[in-house]
Amino acid sequence: MFITFEGIDGSGKSTQIILLRQKLLQEGHAVTVFREPGGTQVSERIRSLLLNPDFDINPVAELLLFSAARAQLIAEKVRPLLEKGEMVILDRFYDSTTAYQGYGRSSLPLPDIQRLNKIASHDIAPDLTFYLQISLEEAQKRTASNEKDRMERAGQPFYDKVVNGFEKLAAKEKRFKTINAEQPSELIHGLIWEKVQQRLRA
Amino acid sequence: MFITFEGIDGSGKSTQIILLRQKLLQEGHAVTVFREPGGTQVSERIRSLLLNPDFDINPVAELLLFSAARAQLIAEKVRPLLEKGEMVILDRFYDSTTAYQGYGRSSLPLPDIQRLNKIASHDIAPDLTFYLQISLEEAQKRTASNEKDRMERAGQPFYDKVVNGFEKLAAKEKRFKTINAEQPSELIHGLIWEKVQQRLRA
Repeated sequence: MFITFEGIDGSGKSTQIILLRQKLLQEGHAVTVFREPGGTQVSERIRSLLLNPDFDINPVAELLLFSAARAQLIAEKVRPLLEKGEMVILDRFYDSTTAYQGYGRSSLPLPDIQRLNKIASHDIAPDLTFYLQISLEEAQKRTASNEKDRMERAGQPFYDKVVNGFEKLAAKEKRFKTINAEQPSELIHGLIWEKVQQRLRA
Repeated sequence: MFITFEGIDGSGKSTQIILLRQKLLQEGHAVTVFREPGGTQVSERIRSLLLNPDFDINPVAELLLFSAARAQLIAEKVRPLLEKGEMVILDRFYDSTTAYQGYGRSSLPLPDIQRLNKIASHDIAPDLTFYLQISLEEAQKRTASNEKDRMERAGQPFYDKVVNGFEKLAAKEKRFKTINAEQPSELIHGLIWEKVQQRLRA
């Protein structure tokens, strides 16, 4: 099973991924977590390029770099694990590309982004996508003390468009499960675990 | 005017670009030369990733990295120069992607590669493309003493497909000018200069 977590920074993806991973391991499942962009030597190199605030990266180049990191991660790690029947959890996947580079930056028309997402993912789609829904205000409060990277410095109008993108995807894609991320994290974990169990039984 | 040079390694692109650049400068033209992948800080970082023999880069990731380097070079350097009315010469452009990643590696169906080429080039096409045609044997003789990078270690069947790709493009695209690259370099330069002059007068 292939599970992805989506949402803006501060929505609690990392916490929920840790909790879900622990639970799955306790239940005897083999599970591996990766973050995007990253997860392979090549992809981590690309990540450091993308997050470096010294570079003024063109929006189309940015989109292609995210896609390149993804193509490497899927081919080198995710696909082999799924083929062995193991579980994979990704901290962000191509829905982030659609939301950030598509809706947020309007770097390319959405159909081009969708085509690129299919290419970069080697046509592998998640079984479940948890969208941790949170208001911008709450997310900003939670991340206020962090040092901002290049992506995070883009400002409020950009983030409004990103959130709108996630909402559009959540409304359209059946694999999306929208979770109110302003609840206590143990409660959120319970909701996520319920959905995963349903899927495991199916 | 936007001029690109294509052909396998050892076909003499670098020599011809130096000669053409000198000639254009003598004639009073503003001209800038870039190599692909490269030409910007970001693109040179991508280049060093692509040519590093330690990495086993997935073919789709490779294609996307070449495209990302290109998108940055075109947006940051080539487009602004062309908009100022200056001349740009590129040592390789998206025809290399079609030949190497499309025909050579069959990383993706050709229509996807063509779409990606348009995206990465921000829809900017060369006015003239010089294809330096040379036999694999002759090219290998010329490059025998060089240390081979990751791309060059791919072997003969790969290069046969790459050459076939260039030939197909040359037969199809009007902007392609095929030059027999086994002639003396001053003679090749004369042929290239003639074509450039024709285009400048047109």
